[in-house]
Amino acid sequence: MDMDANDPITIRRAGRDDVVAIIAMLADDHLGRARERLEEPLPKLYFEAFERVERDPNIELMVAEEAGRVVGCLQLCILPGLSSQGASRGLIEDVRVASDHRSRGIGEQLVRWAVERSRAKGCKVVELLTHHTRVDAQRFYERLGFSRSHVGMTIRF
Amino acid sequence: MDMDANDPITIRRAGRDDVVAIIAMLADDHLGRARERLEEPLPKLYFEAFERVERDPNIELMVAEEAGRVVGCLQLCILPGLSSQGASRGLIEDVRVASDHRSRGIGEQLVRWAVERSRAKGCKVVELLTHHTRVDAQRFYERLGFSRSHVGMTIRF
Repeated sequence: MDMDANDPITIRRAGRDDVVAIIAMLADDHLGRARERLEEPLPKLYFEAFERVERDPNIELMVAEEAGRVVGCLQLCILPGLSSQGASRGLIEDVRVASDHRSRGIGEQLVRWAVERSRAKGCKVVELLTHHTRVDAQRFYERLGFSRSHVGMTIRF
Repeated sequence: MDMDANDPITIRRAGRDDVVAIIAMLADDHLGRARERLEEPLPKLYFEAFERVERDPNIELMVAEEAGRVVGCLQLCILPGLSSQGASRGLIEDVRVASDHRSRGIGEQLVRWAVERSRAKGCKVVELLTHHTRVDAQRFYERLGFSRSHVGMTIRF
């Protein structure tokens, strides 16, 4: 029996010391591989980005920790706006779970945290974009109550 | 000949005096009709939301003005994050053009402004969600260079 499966998961705010583990998860992915630079030492631009995230009062970058190891991450932005009677929106981004820790409910705990947090902050909607090739992710979000209501459109420079 | 079609469009930051015109555009829409409260006076919650938007250094709520009248709007958020080598993302929301001013390139000017602004702020990607029923909007964004790369998923409370 895998004892790890019983270790409790802690969802907590990410710190600077978590950046390497987060980038490792972002890079361990069919889309992320080409986009990230998982080098040692990690390029400074990731730490600069972390500082921008930390300074932003509307953004929470969270990690899931199990037995002292970071095994998941998620970024939640609470976005004010005029539509829907001036309700803020929650935007979930960069959800990842370490490849050797998938299918244990870690992503579910992270996303449920973000949905509840958005509700507590007065949002009337939580939204996310998931790449059209991530079919498993779409099923996962549907199971958590999300609907495929929108088309997500992007321009990359 | 409609002389209005020749009036120049100004894209500028929205002020508190523009909130009524913006809500009128958000409400004049098959999805917005049920979601907004276009009452006189306009409910205070819209002005409170405007203050939250104005206080947020990462958000720019813009309007298109023609001959002194607000005829379009768009909200741009610049979102820091770790992925894509720590590049920020531009998120476009709440794009509307007054129904009697459509098909004149006003939406195009607003969206092109937001894309250029995102690029100037160092974003590597600009993203948006458009409701699956807004087929014309999807064609419009494709014409401006966006691709239907993602599924946009939402939970509404």
